[in-house]
Amino acid sequence: MPVDSPNIPGRSDLAEAVERIVESYRQHGNINHLDGTNLPSRSEATELLDDLVSILFPGYFVQEQVDALTCRYFVGERCARVLRRLERAIDRALALGAPDAPAIMDSSERAALAHEHALALIAAIPDIRHTLDTDVFAAVSGDPAARSRSEVILAYPGVEAIAVHRLAHFLYRRRIPLLPRLLSEIVHRRTGIDIHPGANIGPFFFIDHGTGVVIGETCRIGAHVKIYQGVTLGALSVDRSVNPPASGQRHPTIEDHVTIYAGATILGGDTVIGARSIIGGNVWLTRSVPTDTMVILDNPSLRFVSVA
Amino acid sequence: MPVDSPNIPGRSDLAEAVERIVESYRQHGNINHLDGTNLPSRSEATELLDDLVSILFPGYFVQEQVDALTCRYFVGERCARVLRRLERAIDRALALGAPDAPAIMDSSERAALAHEHALALIAAIPDIRHTLDTDVFAAVSGDPAARSRSEVILAYPGVEAIAVHRLAHFLYRRRIPLLPRLLSEIVHRRTGIDIHPGANIGPFFFIDHGTGVVIGETCRIGAHVKIYQGVTLGALSVDRSVNPPASGQRHPTIEDHVTIYAGATILGGDTVIGARSIIGGNVWLTRSVPTDTMVILDNPSLRFVSVA
Amino acid sequence: MPVDSPNIPGRSDLAEAVERIVESYRQHGNINHLDGTNLPSRSEATELLDDLVSILFPGYFVQEQVDALTCRYFVGERCARVLRRLERAIDRALALGAPDAPAIMDSSERAALAHEHALALIAAIPDIRHTLDTDVFAAVSGDPAARSRSEVILAYPGVEAIAVHRLAHFLYRRRIPLLPRLLSEIVHRRTGIDIHPGANIGPFFFIDHGTGVVIGETCRIGAHVKIYQGVTLGALSVDRSVNPPASGQRHPTIEDHVTIYAGATILGGDTVIGARSIIGGNVWLTRSVPTDTMVILDNPSLRFVSVA
Repeated sequence: MPVDSPNIPGRSDLAEAVERIVESYRQHGNINHLDGTNLPSRSEATELLDDLVSILFPGYFVQEQVDALTCRYFVGERCARVLRRLERAIDRALALGAPDAPAIMDSSERAALAHEHALALIAAIPDIRHTLDTDVFAAVSGDPAARSRSEVILAYPGVEAIAVHRLAHFLYRRRIPLLPRLLSEIVHRRTGIDIHPGANIGPFFFIDHGTGVVIGETCRIGAHVKIYQGVTLGALSVDRSVNPPASGQRHPTIEDHVTIYAGATILGGDTVIGARSIIGGNVWLTRSVPTDTMVILDNPSLRFVSVA
Repeated sequence: MPVDSPNIPGRSDLAEAVERIVESYRQHGNINHLDGTNLPSRSEATELLDDLVSILFPGYFVQEQVDALTCRYFVGERCARVLRRLERAIDRALALGAPDAPAIMDSSERAALAHEHALALIAAIPDIRHTLDTDVFAAVSGDPAARSRSEVILAYPGVEAIAVHRLAHFLYRRRIPLLPRLLSEIVHRRTGIDIHPGANIGPFFFIDHGTGVVIGETCRIGAHVKIYQGVTLGALSVDRSVNPPASGQRHPTIEDHVTIYAGATILGGDTVIGARSIIGGNVWLTRSVPTDTMVILDNPSLRFVSVA
Repeated sequence: MPVDSPNIPGRSDLAEAVERIVESYRQHGNINHLDGTNLPSRSEATELLDDLVSILFPGYFVQEQVDALTCRYFVGERCARVLRRLERAIDRALALGAPDAPAIMDSSERAALAHEHALALIAAIPDIRHTLDTDVFAAVSGDPAARSRSEVILAYPGVEAIAVHRLAHFLYRRRIPLLPRLLSEIVHRRTGIDIHPGANIGPFFFIDHGTGVVIGETCRIGAHVKIYQGVTLGALSVDRSVNPPASGQRHPTIEDHVTIYAGATILGGDTVIGARSIIGGNVWLTRSVPTDTMVILDNPSLRFVSVA
């Protein structure tokens, strides 16, 4: 590969490369969005998410001055900002559409709907905080190493993941395209916990450590469920040619008060883990488990070899 | 859900939502800290952590100009900044307290103690660097893909995780509430490696790849130990109603020169892995292993099915 | 530990600590780079990476205004910036050298070579985009939960990981020290997916969820391969004293149209997974598998215990 001409080194080569890149945008237009539709970018979604979390847990993540006297003004200012950001992001998502939510072409209809959805999420924050309070309680009482609610909110990735999930799930149920997945992926990047916004999760939910946890779109999880790092609640097969269960549920049902230890994998839409059961570490399950049952690996056969 | 009045669209609904959020702060006051106590926020702790790491490994992570001539001024300026940041963060942590470290109410006593702890950590940096030098050596000599010490420091998450752990463990041993966990969680988010600040880890420690590693609070790890991605060193049961071992140790002991391959899980405070032993991938262990022993899965029974 | 003198509290202690830190830089000079060589810092590499990704997928990650009219100017400006940043980073890497690429001492020779490498990567972007288009297609068609190409680009960590890998692999093949690993580690931190820049990966590649995936330096992966979270494609032993296979390949070969489910581990340079085979979840393999074969755990023996 020759070094370019001595006069203006590299300039013409660079110009040629730029032309070829522009040409490649035309050819594979579908791997970007130069076509006029403005998607919500990841940086916009990240700012929106951080604003929402700062309303859920004021004073924890950013250095804002919040006390009993000033908190009304803080919350008011933050909610107004979130409302505008949510409206813009939802408007763009509605213009994009999805297989189960056709794009809305009329811009004033879209703006009204975006406003309605955005306001609904803000109005739901007290209820979401109420449920998050149960999740924080579950973390404090479920981990002997937890020292306080403050520690749990600041330093437990599982609490952040469930907080963002409860927001994303609200938007998912309103069939807003793209945005819920964008929010859940931002928290996946931060925590290693991948909860699809479609998953239905009851109160008092606790994920400990969390790295590698995957919870699929049609999971149904009851109350007081505890999950450790590396647990997958997934689909049996992702082959589109295989018919999903008649219910349309591709991922398992976990009933109340179940504990699932590290690295366990539970698959399939017909799989139900009965209430109060315990799934041991590394267990691989594709069938249902009755209530009040402990499932563990049966004397996993290990070989001990001297290497002295 | 009706769109709001035509005059000032959404304004009254927003105002109402804000009032309900403020009300929810009063009700669930314990999931935020509006009560006058200012906790260290995560953004403050992140700045502090980045400053500390830039002193441990100058010139690696931020674009500062550091050479033999100017490094005294760089270090002096950075240490002065770290001292102030540490004092503030420790002061707030001491005001919060913890079950095993009662809150210190007197503000001048707290300030003096915060200064003492902060200065002690800065004074310990040369010793911490000395130990980190052994960890970097272990990484370079333990991974055939490692090309240089520079590559290991810049691109091995395990080196960053143990660097931050050695700082956090110093603060943990001085019983400073919250801050050590906050630091270790920041590096967990970045690397997927979750080391509790309480874990006691010897020199020449190397974690390769690292995503999903969990090391519990009361682990004791010797010198020259090597750990791969997805390894858990955990507690046998986290049920508070089960008595922990008499020693108070809930997590395993790993002796010198042990290697633990990817996905292995070792649980329990009475479990001791003897010196020079090798634990194979995916092994699940809840009992001790003698010295000089290799433990592997015994011909894991696989089924091969033709799908042609 | 006494609080310091009342006059200028802590100042002399701080000065002493600073001197001891500077002294420790002299002693363990090799865990920093005060010796005149300026490495590419992680923050510089991060900016470079974000610029490159914004050219690959314009409009997705940062809030830039890009449309058919302005995109030539956007791309031109961005490419010029990337060229300068790449030149600087490559120049520093060439000055550092590596075991298989001796440091280039002559600064004008180094500058010319850095320019050549940088321009070559920019010129390769259309081809890389062409291959990424196949990866995006594989993600959309391989995951029933995927709604659109936009969602896949914005919210699938596997797509980001393979995009950065294809850039890093290009630089790796040109034997540029350090920089490829630096880029792949930045995306590892973001996604939990750890692909060594040396790995050879065919088109239509899809990693779902991804947290905990590790793909080693000498892996060879064909076309239409699908991999789930927690999969390791690794070396059998990392002991330098054990001779690697004669081929020099330490990591497995995965042929076309293979699917590998969550948590499977495949090790060794002589291990070949034949075309169209399926490796089940949690399978641990150190030997080859013929074509068109499904390998699953054979009735993993579980114990069910009533805990009612």
